[in-house]
Parts: sequence; structure tokens; C-alpha cells
Amino acid sequence: MLLFYILDLQNPVLLSEEESKHCIKVLRLQKGDSLHLTDGKGHLAKAEIIEANPKKCVLQILDIEQFPQKKDFKIHLAVAPTKNADRMEWLVEKCIEIGIDEISFFQAQHSERQHFNLERLQKKAIAALKQSLHLHLPKMNALLSFKNLIANSTEDQKFIAYVDSQNPSKLFESAKKNQSYLVLIGPEGDFSTQELDLALNNNFQKVSLGNSRLRTETAGIVACLTLNLLNE
Amino acid sequence: MLLFYILDLQNPVLLSEEESKHCIKVLRLQKGDSLHLTDGKGHLAKAEIIEANPKKCVLQILDIEQFPQKKDFKIHLAVAPTKNADRMEWLVEKCIEIGIDEISFFQAQHSERQHFNLERLQKKAIAALKQSLHLHLPKMNALLSFKNLIANSTEDQKFIAYVDSQNPSKLFESAKKNQSYLVLIGPEGDFSTQELDLALNNNFQKVSLGNSRLRTETAGIVACLTLNLLNE
Repeated sequence: MLLFYILDLQNPVLLSEEESKHCIKVLRLQKGDSLHLTDGKGHLAKAEIIEANPKKCVLQILDIEQFPQKKDFKIHLAVAPTKNADRMEWLVEKCIEIGIDEISFFQAQHSERQHFNLERLQKKAIAALKQSLHLHLPKMNALLSFKNLIANSTEDQKFIAYVDSQNPSKLFESAKKNQSYLVLIGPEGDFSTQELDLALNNNFQKVSLGNSRLRTETAGIVACLTLNLLNE
Repeated sequence: MLLFYILDLQNPVLLSEEESKHCIKVLRLQKGDSLHLTDGKGHLAKAEIIEANPKKCVLQILDIEQFPQKKDFKIHLAVAPTKNADRMEWLVEKCIEIGIDEISFFQAQHSERQHFNLERLQKKAIAALKQSLHLHLPKMNALLSFKNLIANSTEDQKFIAYVDSQNPSKLFESAKKNQSYLVLIGPEGDFSTQELDLALNNNFQKVSLGNSRLRTETAGIVACLTLNLLNE
């Protein structure tokens, strides 16, 4: 199945320049050929090419089906971006393949990175959505302060990945089935003690992600997969 | 802890040019500074710099401890390399961070890639070992034919990641604790039916890795983490 992403599923559909190029130049689709579209909100449309323009490909939607999220849990991952932008792009790609509902980024005290490119990550997210044939694009939030992230968290179970001498229990054991989860993944220099205290004072629970020292992006993928496995 | 890799832990230790540069130029260590060494075979040595040469750093081992593998399971992943070499490097890095014992690569009928660079992957493996402070470097095998891989497999439980209309059971449910496992991950174009039959006739079991369509390298990471979680 060829899946393309479009913000609004309204006739006539005009693909973006990038998507048009992919459709006409790379895949060599022609007028009359059909393909599938999603808006990342659970809709799957079948559409036909009515103008095979490699810059502005025009499509006609033939029918639309709605596929609601069928799962009883919700995974929200909040990550302190790594210095290396590639590593965050991989995190986004892999989490979308595996299954995730929301991704936030926050500024931590020990973050080495001050800015990051949400737009680039969103593009990566759309590419991963298409590749994995998912119809629900996760919500992606711009860089937040750690305080705001903590203050506005409403999930059933809230975790902070932090291993210290107290050797906290593992995420796989601490998480209950069919909940909404938020997992905080710290920067390369880990959370500060103030950040840890703030989280613990706001009903976050310290958890370990396993026996290994993991890079930030690996920790994110491990948390995402652990919660998916728990609920499968 | 600063961990360096060396093939043989024998005095005097001579670091490679790359490791010497990292040690003296990047980390700015000096004569008399100490660091840790591993041979990837479970040894951890404490050593002191006796010649801070940025091309040929010389060390004196002060003591060596042996850390045997403490786990009761063994994970062997066999993967058909992807066209994009980066994706295989990521797979190796992530699996080593998470925990793996052996990685093989095989030539599949639908493989787009004919050659791959084992040396480069081994370098990546050593970097990941150091970063994650692991002392056991997984065994990495040169490209095998699918037939040879199947014929020489001796693991307790052997799986082939393959989803078809029979909807096989999930790896997490099919795998038993405390076993040696082999999981085969197919190429981008999936296994051929001949390959599937050959595996099934040699006591491999079809398994699904979850509800999503995963890229080759993601499937590898998911299999590795699933077996680690099961045994933790």
C-alpha cells in the first residue's frame, strides 16, 4: 500500500511539492493511478491522480474510512533533546514505528542543547507514519521548560527514568496495564537533583529502564517499547 | 568511568592511534592519569598512563578483575543487512546498549545489499561497548548464506520474524525464560517462501514482533529488547 500524508482530506487534494515529486518522479505514478492518503487523525482515503504534476500533483478522493485508535493505553514520552539532532530524529522515527501517542521535548538544567528544530522532527514523524502505515500521527510539542512540563502533566502514571543508589524498580514492573503514561527521559548529563525532587513532589515515580546505561534516544525507545509490550 | 577497549590486556598496553588520540587530544589525559580498560571478554583493568603520546599512548595495568556474564540467557540476532549501512550501525549500537550476545548477518533472496563492511560494524560495536560500560563484546559474524545460518544454528529456541495471514503468536509469548535464542530478521523485501519453509523445516518458529510494520533495524532492536525484558 502506498500511503501519503495530507493535512486536510478535502477534494481536490493538492500534494505538497515534496510529496508530488515522490509520487510522480520517484514512484512514477500516472494520471488515473490510485493511492492512499491519511491525515494522521485516523482517516484513510483512497484517491486517484487527476493531474500528475511533479510539483503540484492533484488527486480526487474516492472514499474515506475512519479508523479510531483501538487501544486502551496512551504513551507520552518527554525527552531532553540530545546535542546530536540525528539521534532525536531516530527516536521519533522508531517510536512512531513501534507506537506512540505524544512526544514532548523539554529544556533540562544539564541539557547541552538550547534549540531544536521541531519542524524537521515533524517531517521525520510524517515519513515514519507513512512507512509504518499508521494512521495516527502523534502529537508533538515544542520545547517546554521542565517546570511547565511537570505542572501540566495529567497522565494516570508518571515516571522519571532515573537510576540512583536506591535502585528503583523497573518500568515494566511499575507500570499498570491500560493507563495513560508519561515517561521523562533526561539529557546526557542526567536530571539535576532539583529536577528529580520537583518530579517526585508531583507524583512522578522513579523507574529504571533495565540493567544497562542507555543513551538518551535508546532510553526513549526502550520506554516506548516496554509500555507497548506490557499492553499487548 | 572512562572505559577503553584493548584486544589483549598485557603490560605494557599500547593504545591504537584512534584510542590514543581520544585519550590524549580529546580527553586531555596526562601521564599519571588513570583509566579503565576492557578486552570485551569480561575483564576490567585499571591502568595508568605512562607515556601520553597522542598517537601511541602507553599504559601500565595496575590490576585486572574478571566479571563473568551473570545472565541465564543468550540472545543471537541474525539480520539481512539493509541497503542503508547507517541503519545496520544503529542496530548494532542499540542492541549492544540494550544487551546482546551474538549478531550475524545473512544474505537473503530478497536482499538488495550484496556486500557489507563488518570491520566498520565492529568499530561501532566497540564504541557502543565503551559508551554503555559493558565488558562483553558480542560475537559478530561475517555475512553468511541463509542456508549455512540455518544449518549451523544450535540455539534452544529459534524464531523467524514473519507475519502472514496465520497471524503467528508474539515473540514475547513464544519465548521461554532462560534459554538461548536465535531470531531471524528478514530484508526490506521480507523472506522468500523458500526461506520461510527452510526455517520452519529446521525447527524455527514463526513469530510476530508486535502490531506494527517495522523496518529491518527496528525489528532487530524490538526482538533484542523483548527477550531482555522477558528475562529481567
